[in-house]
Amino acid sequence: MLSERMKQKRYFLPEDEIPRQWYNIQADMPNKPMPMLDPATREPVTLEQLSEIFSVECCRQELNLTDRWIDIPEEVREKYKFYRSTPLVRAYGLEDALGTPAHIYFKNESVSPVGSHKLNSALAQAFYCKQEGVTNVTTETGAGQWGTALSYAANLFGMNAAVYQVKVSYEQKPYRRSMMQVFGAQVTPSPSMSTRAGKDILTAMPNHQGSLGTAISEAIELARTTPEKCKYTLGSTMSHVSLHQTVIGLEAEKQMEMAGEYPDIVIACFGGGSNFSGLAFPFMRHNFFDGKKTRFIAAEPSSCPKMTKGVFEYDFGDEAGYTPLIPMFTLGHKFQPANIHAGGLRYHGAGGVVSQLMKDNIMEAVDIRQTESFKAGVLFAKAEGIVPAPESCHAIAATIREAEICRQTGESKVILFNLTGHGLMDMSAYDQYLSGNLIDIDY
Amino acid sequence: MLSERMKQKRYFLPEDEIPRQWYNIQADMPNKPMPMLDPATREPVTLEQLSEIFSVECCRQELNLTDRWIDIPEEVREKYKFYRSTPLVRAYGLEDALGTPAHIYFKNESVSPVGSHKLNSALAQAFYCKQEGVTNVTTETGAGQWGTALSYAANLFGMNAAVYQVKVSYEQKPYRRSMMQVFGAQVTPSPSMSTRAGKDILTAMPNHQGSLGTAISEAIELARTTPEKCKYTLGSTMSHVSLHQTVIGLEAEKQMEMAGEYPDIVIACFGGGSNFSGLAFPFMRHNFFDGKKTRFIAAEPSSCPKMTKGVFEYDFGDEAGYTPLIPMFTLGHKFQPANIHAGGLRYHGAGGVVSQLMKDNIMEAVDIRQTESFKAGVLFAKAEGIVPAPESCHAIAATIREAEICRQTGESKVILFNLTGHGLMDMSAYDQYLSGNLIDIDY
Repeated sequence: MLSERMKQKRYFLPEDEIPRQWYNIQADMPNKPMPMLDPATREPVTLEQLSEIFSVECCRQELNLTDRWIDIPEEVREKYKFYRSTPLVRAYGLEDALGTPAHIYFKNESVSPVGSHKLNSALAQAFYCKQEGVTNVTTETGAGQWGTALSYAANLFGMNAAVYQVKVSYEQKPYRRSMMQVFGAQVTPSPSMSTRAGKDILTAMPNHQGSLGTAISEAIELARTTPEKCKYTLGSTMSHVSLHQTVIGLEAEKQMEMAGEYPDIVIACFGGGSNFSGLAFPFMRHNFFDGKKTRFIAAEPSSCPKMTKGVFEYDFGDEAGYTPLIPMFTLGHKFQPANIHAGGLRYHGAGGVVSQLMKDNIMEAVDIRQTESFKAGVLFAKAEGIVPAPESCHAIAATIREAEICRQTGESKVILFNLTGHGLMDMSAYDQYLSGNLIDIDY
Repeated sequence: MLSERMKQKRYFLPEDEIPRQWYNIQADMPNKPMPMLDPATREPVTLEQLSEIFSVECCRQELNLTDRWIDIPEEVREKYKFYRSTPLVRAYGLEDALGTPAHIYFKNESVSPVGSHKLNSALAQAFYCKQEGVTNVTTETGAGQWGTALSYAANLFGMNAAVYQVKVSYEQKPYRRSMMQVFGAQVTPSPSMSTRAGKDILTAMPNHQGSLGTAISEAIELARTTPEKCKYTLGSTMSHVSLHQTVIGLEAEKQMEMAGEYPDIVIACFGGGSNFSGLAFPFMRHNFFDGKKTRFIAAEPSSCPKMTKGVFEYDFGDEAGYTPLIPMFTLGHKFQPANIHAGGLRYHGAGGVVSQLMKDNIMEAVDIRQTESFKAGVLFAKAEGIVPAPESCHAIAATIREAEICRQTGESKVILFNLTGHGLMDMSAYDQYLSGNLIDIDY
């Protein structure tokens, strides 16, 4: 006879329950995000200015503060069906390993073709670009999750992709580069000598290891200096990216209902905010309107703690200062993050929307050391069979902290976290951890 | 408006439709497989002899020629629910890329926690070992798919695992080793100096690159020379392994029915026969009894073509001659396969059951060169978003050959192939292919 706890449960939605609309939290926020500013005039940026680098439709979504629901184009939703719904999993194995009365669930975004949640926005952005006649797209990538997603999506819609990958990740994770190349993308380690921004940085700092901020500068410059059919795309921070990612939380809402529970705590790792937003925003609206008291916790690395140790101010999104000024929690756009393995979290700032939510105490943040994150990742892998991405390990570590509190208090809180991606291309990081050679680098 | 062909379809089974029994083809074969023989006496091996190295229950299954259906233990079926049913996918993207009227489906076993079909048998074997009081299990692995599966399953049931990994794969695929270690296994490159068999080979051939045959010898020796609570487990060739893998085909049968089609051709890559058997056997019974005329094609590497260029005879399953004599298509148990990237197909022989089916013309075989396999893999990755394991690339290449014939004849044949695993830990092989440095090595 099997006990109920031996039965790991996965919840899927039928195809016709996959969301048809994204949730635009900007319509519902108690305080709207402050506008992005043109650095020259300090006036709010216009649709025209933004759409010089991004697809027009993404810019419209970016500036849309009123429509709560935005239709998912049918072409995008059909591509979502390649891998969605992603499973919601009750993590009985992890609960048992921790001996906690907490009920732990995770949304498994690692099952997407490219191995992470990033595809949710890459498909949308690539579709809009294609629809607007774009032939070439470019972007930055840290760990490579976003770059892989964009490479795949661009290929799917018949466009070329050029990806600037943060140099330290390019070297730490060669398999990610290969995967982007399999999908036909051109991949360049950043900083590179192929852009003015890259050259300037390398001239000043020949051993610069790269950062997301620098890679963004290079990609924006490429988009600006290439004939008009090249657009820039971004994997996090902006509100249209968060919008696309809400498909995660909207599915999770229905799946938690199938499980007969509602989360007391929602946890996600935090780089610029894309997966956090995607999982948390749909649940936040029930805090706004339905009296729910869910806690939302962003788990960031202790070496790059913009939410817990940064300041809220207008700052650039990139190293060279090509972006508009963004109202954000930031460590400064010249900040050079340490070379932790969670390359996707090595970003100096948070998006404008999440920054406002943080300022308004609608969410909280914790910082996690690298060794704590990998310890959590190995425990999870043994308990649930999935080797998590180093980024996701931060969410697992934060989940374990909350589950430990439950163990002490005896409370059966319902915790939901986002498993953003698998770590199959990060095994060298696990090697380093298992051999005792991983170090902690605090801010 | 979307055309029907833009809609990739995935078919899942509800949890209560996951099979409750495996299919034992030995009960239904027109000619039963010839018995394994004790090499000393040339008498059929007994249950007692076999169970010196394997779990008793697996040996019972191995020798069971009469029961068509074998119950899946509830504990194993519960673990299957972690990842099963695996999706059956209509590969519209691949069809479009080929311009073929064929209807192509694949069974996506790459979604298992360990990334391949191997877990289907690892869970069963680990469970039986545990039930019989075993504390330590050991095995060989080539590419690392089986070793990873056993490492995970052993950890899940609270046992220690020791894995001998073929040296060339150990070096080509370091991430696989790391993954086994994350699951707590001890991994040794084979041939090693830790066994008599390994020492003998290294003394004679100091640069021996390893083979599955050699690694099997080492693992069997470890099981035999370790106190009684250590058992050997095997990832392919034997009929109990094929039996466990039939969960693939039994699911696929129901899923093809959901799709409203029945396969004209079933294709799987071929190392020792485990995934081929798993997908094909359940469909074969309809050839036996229901007048179906499905073709079954094993796709093997041209560098290790036991089915197309081997001979049918009694041979050992391992290099040192520790196994019983097995009736098999074989290239000789001393054969040293070339260092192709599809490490899981580098085995000199086929299992006894599939060998008999081959001899009786119930199935066919083709051989595929390494470059053709990777060309197929890249095409598939771009079309379907999944980077396939080098082994699976052989099945894809054979599928493409058949789809090309359909393109020429205009026939809409229904082709079903097994996507045994993902290639995320084999990206160095893709690198080599994309840079033009991959070579073909024929037998």
